Amino acid sequence: MKTYIECYPCFLRQAISAARYAGCEEKVLFEIMQQTLEALHRQSPGATPPEIASVVHRIVRELCEVTDPYREEKHKATRKALELYPELTRLVASKPPEEMLETAVRISIAGNIIDLGVSSAYDDLGQTLERVLHQPFAINHLPAFMKMLDKSKSILFFGDNAGETVFDRVLIETLPVPVTYVVKGMPVLNDATLEDALMAGLDQCATIVPNGSDIPGTVLERCTPEVRFLFDQATLVIAKGQGNYETLNESGHKVFNLLQVKCPVIAGDIGAEVGSIVVRQGQVNDK
Amino acid sequence: MKTYIECYPCFLRQAISAARYAGCEEKVLFEIMQQTLEALHRQSPGATPPEIASVVHRIVRELCEVTDPYREEKHKATRKALELYPELTRLVASKPPEEMLETAVRISIAGNIIDLGVSSAYDDLGQTLERVLHQPFAINHLPAFMKMLDKSKSILFFGDNAGETVFDRVLIETLPVPVTYVVKGMPVLNDATLEDALMAGLDQCATIVPNGSDIPGTVLERCTPEVRFLFDQATLVIAKGQGNYETLNESGHKVFNLLQVKCPVIAGDIGAEVGSIVVRQGQVNDK
Repeated sequence: MKTYIECYPCFLRQAISAARYAGCEEKVLFEIMQQTLEALHRQSPGATPPEIASVVHRIVRELCEVTDPYREEKHKATRKALELYPELTRLVASKPPEEMLETAVRISIAGNIIDLGVSSAYDDLGQTLERVLHQPFAINHLPAFMKMLDKSKSILFFGDNAGETVFDRVLIETLPVPVTYVVKGMPVLNDATLEDALMAGLDQCATIVPNGSDIPGTVLERCTPEVRFLFDQATLVIAKGQGNYETLNESGHKVFNLLQVKCPVIAGDIGAEVGSIVVRQGQVNDK
Repeated sequence: MKTYIECYPCFLRQAISAARYAGCEEKVLFEIMQQTLEALHRQSPGATPPEIASVVHRIVRELCEVTDPYREEKHKATRKALELYPELTRLVASKPPEEMLETAVRISIAGNIIDLGVSSAYDDLGQTLERVLHQPFAINHLPAFMKMLDKSKSILFFGDNAGETVFDRVLIETLPVPVTYVVKGMPVLNDATLEDALMAGLDQCATIVPNGSDIPGTVLERCTPEVRFLFDQATLVIAKGQGNYETLNESGHKVFNLLQVKCPVIAGDIGAEVGSIVVRQGQVNDK
């Protein structure tokens, strides 16, 4: 997805929010803003929003001298999600076999509410779960996903945020094939890194692979050769969240974006209202 | 008031919003964003938010080649307000004499909801009026205002937005002394210019004086010598709205800021919640 003009105020908002999470001193804030304005001015108009966001978050981490401003928040989110985990697995187990996968997909999408890029607080997890379990899909390519799943021997799964990882774990434990779970190579926003994935217990159900990048999305050219190879070989890919929609929405039919629509720009691009839940098969970029 | 770091995302938001009001073509939007980022980077940290906003709106007007992007919106707001005008004057007249002035002050503050700098839509005028007529003041320096009014032979009144002008007219018609009503010298945001003030019928109750500036607030050094002289001579000054609070909050005890608090930054600075109504006597800047 291209960067829309409406994304720019949001980049500045994210810089401020990240600096606050980093416990940044007031006197550093102005320098962060100056460097962010300069960096935004330098960006090519073809860059996706997560690529630009990564530059902004890098400025904040450097000037605040904090490796991971969101570390505490990520741990908190993972702990909260782990409290829900037994209930979530019971919920899937309580369903008839033909409904289990859709329920697990919905649970994974419910976890996508944990997003500190959109706002600095997110709704109550329990309420979100209740909503997402019953809400109709605004875009529903689940039948196409099921069909491809039948023929696939494994799944490549691009994770999104810490805490959401636990909800993904429930989905992965329901999937009938082995899963490789890709996390960010370095901290950015509240995106899950290896540490966060381990804390969510994802090593018990998937192979965790860091992507070598600090972009809050998945720009394949910026990932490790291993991740690029995994992507090329994959027959079925799950890409969670807005950041992965923004970077992997035109990477072919084998990619399925699972997300909640949380910002008006993505709502416009994807063609579904804010608050929608989406399972969307990737397009082919033929530009 | 200084420019807080949180104002920066809002400047970008205003640039986009103004460009949309100007009917700006998509291809020009990116250039507007580029020039705005550059301009924000150049601003001195000591500038007030309206000074910086004026630079942003100038970029939009120039690149969109539109003198007054908000002209239609301002006319619409003024027409809507004029429809309410008979009811507003009846309302003041229906009060016992000792309550008339406070009612008129509240009406003038209710009109301050018409503000396209804060968001691109504002609440229903009737509902706002109902609320502001009964809401307690978060800051209430009305007694000090009344006291100074007793000794003053005239009032200098810095207006704010088009449409709000009609609500100010009701206050001016209730005030016992002659009023000079200062409007913006050039279009900026939905701030009232001479044209807008005339459309509101302010010439029937006040002397209208344009300030020679396109700052959505009042920076005296950027006003005409006439307006500076009027300010120096004035014994009592009313300054409407957030923009005039941001620029005239430390211009001495003779200044009274009348406003609705509509943004979290001003809420923090003034010490009153968003949604509050305020009559605040100016401080003396002794820095």
